[in-house]
Amino acid sequence: MRAVDIIAKKRDGGELTKEEIEFFIQGYTRGDIPDYQAAAWAMAVYLRGMSNQETINLTLAMAHSGRILDLHQAAPFVVDKHSTGGVGDKTTIMVAPWVASCGLPVGKMSGRGLGFSGGTLDKLESIRGYKVPLSVEEFLTQLRDHGVVVAGQTADLAPADGKLYALRDVTATVASLPLIASSVMSKKIASGADAIVLDVKVGKGAFMRTVEEAVALAQIMVEVGQGVGRRVRAVISDMNQPLGRAVGNALETAEAMAALRGRGPEDFVEHCLVVAEQMLILGGKAEDKSAARRMLTEALESGRAWDKFVEWITAQGGDPDVLTDPPDLPRARLIEEVPAPRSGYIAGLDARQVGLTAVLLGAGRAKKEDTIDLSVGVVLAAKIGDYVEKGQPLLTIHANDEHRLAEAREHLLAAYTWSEEPVERPPLVYQVIG
Amino acid sequence: MRAVDIIAKKRDGGELTKEEIEFFIQGYTRGDIPDYQAAAWAMAVYLRGMSNQETINLTLAMAHSGRILDLHQAAPFVVDKHSTGGVGDKTTIMVAPWVASCGLPVGKMSGRGLGFSGGTLDKLESIRGYKVPLSVEEFLTQLRDHGVVVAGQTADLAPADGKLYALRDVTATVASLPLIASSVMSKKIASGADAIVLDVKVGKGAFMRTVEEAVALAQIMVEVGQGVGRRVRAVISDMNQPLGRAVGNALETAEAMAALRGRGPEDFVEHCLVVAEQMLILGGKAEDKSAARRMLTEALESGRAWDKFVEWITAQGGDPDVLTDPPDLPRARLIEEVPAPRSGYIAGLDARQVGLTAVLLGAGRAKKEDTIDLSVGVVLAAKIGDYVEKGQPLLTIHANDEHRLAEAREHLLAAYTWSEEPVERPPLVYQVIG
Repeated sequence: MRAVDIIAKKRDGGELTKEEIEFFIQGYTRGDIPDYQAAAWAMAVYLRGMSNQETINLTLAMAHSGRILDLHQAAPFVVDKHSTGGVGDKTTIMVAPWVASCGLPVGKMSGRGLGFSGGTLDKLESIRGYKVPLSVEEFLTQLRDHGVVVAGQTADLAPADGKLYALRDVTATVASLPLIASSVMSKKIASGADAIVLDVKVGKGAFMRTVEEAVALAQIMVEVGQGVGRRVRAVISDMNQPLGRAVGNALETAEAMAALRGRGPEDFVEHCLVVAEQMLILGGKAEDKSAARRMLTEALESGRAWDKFVEWITAQGGDPDVLTDPPDLPRARLIEEVPAPRSGYIAGLDARQVGLTAVLLGAGRAKKEDTIDLSVGVVLAAKIGDYVEKGQPLLTIHANDEHRLAEAREHLLAAYTWSEEPVERPPLVYQVIG
Repeated sequence: MRAVDIIAKKRDGGELTKEEIEFFIQGYTRGDIPDYQAAAWAMAVYLRGMSNQETINLTLAMAHSGRILDLHQAAPFVVDKHSTGGVGDKTTIMVAPWVASCGLPVGKMSGRGLGFSGGTLDKLESIRGYKVPLSVEEFLTQLRDHGVVVAGQTADLAPADGKLYALRDVTATVASLPLIASSVMSKKIASGADAIVLDVKVGKGAFMRTVEEAVALAQIMVEVGQGVGRRVRAVISDMNQPLGRAVGNALETAEAMAALRGRGPEDFVEHCLVVAEQMLILGGKAEDKSAARRMLTEALESGRAWDKFVEWITAQGGDPDVLTDPPDLPRARLIEEVPAPRSGYIAGLDARQVGLTAVLLGAGRAKKEDTIDLSVGVVLAAKIGDYVEKGQPLLTIHANDEHRLAEAREHLLAAYTWSEEPVERPPLVYQVIG
């Protein structure tokens, strides 16, 4: 078998066999197949697509390019969640301890932010002392002893994906359904959870721009996961405007903590409920959505969800002194409230624009190697469907640089569109698949 | 400007600007843009195509990635020819001295064989002493003093093409019209001839399989060349069966030498006449085809064409003792005449199969680094349209290894198809463009 023939076959729209995909992925992982051949192959996959069977085989080949964790030594059944990435998406920080507080262990390896899309690990690192890189042994111990763990992905899980992902980023081959699906699912399969709830974002602030694309991605990911015996469901959720009100690492962590204390923005808490319900159902803790919702509401109102959060964070190295109310998180030097420039209903609030503005303030990375400023970001006072009087607070900018603040103000005001007529709020969730 | 954005634009079917193409090619030549980005870009070009304007800009960017020769210090007007590659194509060896003997200087940088397709430089190296690598100064001197020179391409001409060509070979992006056209024409433009006759081969033993494809390639190459002020014409010629009778380096050189002495196979000599006519017309030496043909026939019959050949070869280092009749060229140890296995008309003689069999015997390269055996090959006694009686000579195999000879015999017999009914000979030339 030769790599060039496999590239040519995909270039011509052929369906690669399991053996061809394994040969290519194994060769690439070992370094026998160079980056330039993988790049040509990835572009051919991008433009020619892959059948579901090819995507499943690609996922398995990448999952098996490294170690496959067995979490059963830590817990009999472990659930995981994954978001395809959005703006203001601090769901994991609320959902992980919330579900764990209902007696279902949550073990998750998470990622960093890139481009307009934030990352859970960055947000958690705004808590002083929180230890993101855990060894497999530490991961398992934390999961066994506390029922909840969120850490960075260890390098020996799905190394083919790590290599291919970095290559796709610089070869314009990111936005490909089979490549995204196999990237996500290879890591999820390797990291060992029995059940996975996928949060597939759709809209201006997501990689998927239409519900159809999101559904197609969700279906193939669900099929891949179920094909290897995992329980998988996907929630198709809106990302036209940011989720919740805070965008920026420490600001989002503070918002998730407030939500765990019962004071979260309504849309964010409802979104977390939908994801958490599915986790409890897949984990066999609840018969149906209403039973799950009752259980979650009780956990939140009783304070058990907050207590589990404190247990999780402190067990994973977080400084308990940070967890005050309000929490003691990194704080920006310049905090400016921006008033509404006009009266009216908010008709649009471009999530991508807000995400890119947060990057501009220093909250995110343009390149992987960039360092980030945990303190900066935006808090939105008004979202789609709200009526705002001219001069009322529209948003607050947290910045450490006057020039960037001024530029951010302009970008953020431009992210809003207005209407004289009442505007309906967009749905939070379009569909649940699986 | 970022390479990844240029890749994405082409991936999505966009038309690249002159500036984008120059940025990409200059960056790739300098090594700022790595192979993996060029590979993804090449695959996007392969699958999305390029407009004529993009192809022209790509050609110019590659031509200007290195030195552009000015041949006018050697001769006021220089003509060149280029074949897109075929089996048994020793046209340059006959045409270059023939045209030069009519008073039109011929300066050509040529290539090596790869795959089933032979290369002129390999064929010329079967002449003891012939010096393929010339410095630019040697090239110019030979051109000035003898009016004919055929050498290897110097590394400082179109280095972007050299780099990209090697990459395309291993990333399944060779057979792309804009990439082929720009590769050929960037070298031709850089090597400085005023006029270029392109010999675009079509059929089983060529890269272009249909006349439509060949015409499309020819048209864009002619347009590119004319766009930068060169006189360019393209001859679309048949490559379903090998050209002439000999396939293999020394065997082909011997055939071209016999042709220059007036004893060449009819199809080969006629093909050379068509190409040479166009060169004389472009060079202003002849008004039209019939005037050119008269001039060429006279040069051949008078012996001036042969004399020019001897002058060229010896001036470029070739041993005059080789140029006896028959010539003293490398000779294979095993020479086997294969009789026709049946009586009938020859209906097909698969050029690709014959070319690959010559490679099997050692005449060609599977990879660039392979060494070749100059002595081996095949001489075909019968071609399409000929009637052969069972047991009459069909072909002769020249080999240095018994096993390979036996295998070659089988492949060559399979390359023939037969008919009870008379079969028309295929046309030699389909069209002249430009």
